[in-house]
Amino acid sequence: MRYRATLAYDGTRFHGFQRQANARPTVQGEVEGALGRISGQTIRVLGAGRTDAGVHARGQVIAFDLSWRHPKEALRDALNACLPADIAVLDVREAAPGFHPRYDALSRSYMYRVRVAPVRDPLERLLVWHLIRPLDLEPMQAAAACLLGEHDFSAFGTPPQGESPVRCIGAARWEEGPDGLFTFTITANAFLYRMVRTIVGTLVLVGRGQMTDKAFEGILAARRRSQAGTPAPAQGLTLVSVQYEE
Amino acid sequence: MRYRATLAYDGTRFHGFQRQANARPTVQGEVEGALGRISGQTIRVLGAGRTDAGVHARGQVIAFDLSWRHPKEALRDALNACLPADIAVLDVREAAPGFHPRYDALSRSYMYRVRVAPVRDPLERLLVWHLIRPLDLEPMQAAAACLLGEHDFSAFGTPPQGESPVRCIGAARWEEGPDGLFTFTITANAFLYRMVRTIVGTLVLVGRGQMTDKAFEGILAARRRSQAGTPAPAQGLTLVSVQYEE
Repeated sequence: MRYRATLAYDGTRFHGFQRQANARPTVQGEVEGALGRISGQTIRVLGAGRTDAGVHARGQVIAFDLSWRHPKEALRDALNACLPADIAVLDVREAAPGFHPRYDALSRSYMYRVRVAPVRDPLERLLVWHLIRPLDLEPMQAAAACLLGEHDFSAFGTPPQGESPVRCIGAARWEEGPDGLFTFTITANAFLYRMVRTIVGTLVLVGRGQMTDKAFEGILAARRRSQAGTPAPAQGLTLVSVQYEE
Repeated sequence: MRYRATLAYDGTRFHGFQRQANARPTVQGEVEGALGRISGQTIRVLGAGRTDAGVHARGQVIAFDLSWRHPKEALRDALNACLPADIAVLDVREAAPGFHPRYDALSRSYMYRVRVAPVRDPLERLLVWHLIRPLDLEPMQAAAACLLGEHDFSAFGTPPQGESPVRCIGAARWEEGPDGLFTFTITANAFLYRMVRTIVGTLVLVGRGQMTDKAFEGILAARRRSQAGTPAPAQGLTLVSVQYEE
């Protein structure tokens, strides 16, 4: 039986989602280890998104094949008992035999959080990017709106080898919360490598007045990677959800 | 000149606030180390509350003597540059020469957070106590109300040697937030050792229906330490603020 599960994790300790040839801890490696302990077999896990080192998830979707005779909740609880505290299986359900969390995904949503404050907050340092200089919401919002629709995003990331750099953004919006918290949410059919972090790093330049929203639009249109900002740090980024046809 | 500073820290990595004879990391040790690097001298720090290993702070108050010729903000920033990422100095101000953050404090406020959910949340595991079984707010609130006023709190903690176990609670209240988050805030002139965590551990028994609020009141009145609950784990507790006569 193929199962589909939703994962949450604190990416701080991991070298990304994807299993690596060396022995460094990855989310995929930990989940495959837990499945191995439960089943006594080697079970491979497919993931919807290859989150980078330090990037978190609240809604990563995975799939795996397993013979399991007990209720789905018992599988969830058995996996959580075997997983380290920084990974949790939120739910498990049965999936169609050919279900693939990456190829079947319609879109993915990420969230990036920035805190503007004179002093860093040690209690959120692993989840939020701390900035001292103020951000102006309006030009950041205007620049983000340029991203909507289908574009060649070469300015902001790299496609897997042989793949097109064209992606379609369905939503890209900042929200300003209390105490200088700025949350950016973005949804696309798929993302290029480092795309969300590079977009955020560049939008922050716009928010600081170091770049106009028109210049931002120009970088996108001209596909000028060299003029985009430095990628924002990994810890502010969270994979929130993956959408499928139900 | 005597300075007073407000600290925030993630207590996860520390063996409590108070410096220890062995080499284990403590918040006091880190702050004294930072002051030493700034001044080239050995500077001792006084703290308002000796938070335990794993307990956090958003408003710990400290005092120290230092010759500093630059603005207070520059002292704050210099300390933050020398401190590890899990400690921050939120503000620095000048204090009266005899100011003592512990003896001059009128009261302290702590917050304890509990999340009731079928699965743990890896992203808040260092800041919140996760419980699976549901909690009923009303009896917990009724039991907490018994704590108000002056009582002998021997049932819930141990005073420093030679000191009275009588303390005066000014506020003790639960708030139920979204998604099963329960926040307990408590203010007292001072607390016994492990007092907040033991109160929370016992109130959770009340919230689960394993103890009535009347039984809770009886334990307090009878000073029966053996009938109180196990202390709630350190990671849910945060020292929020310390109040002084201004």
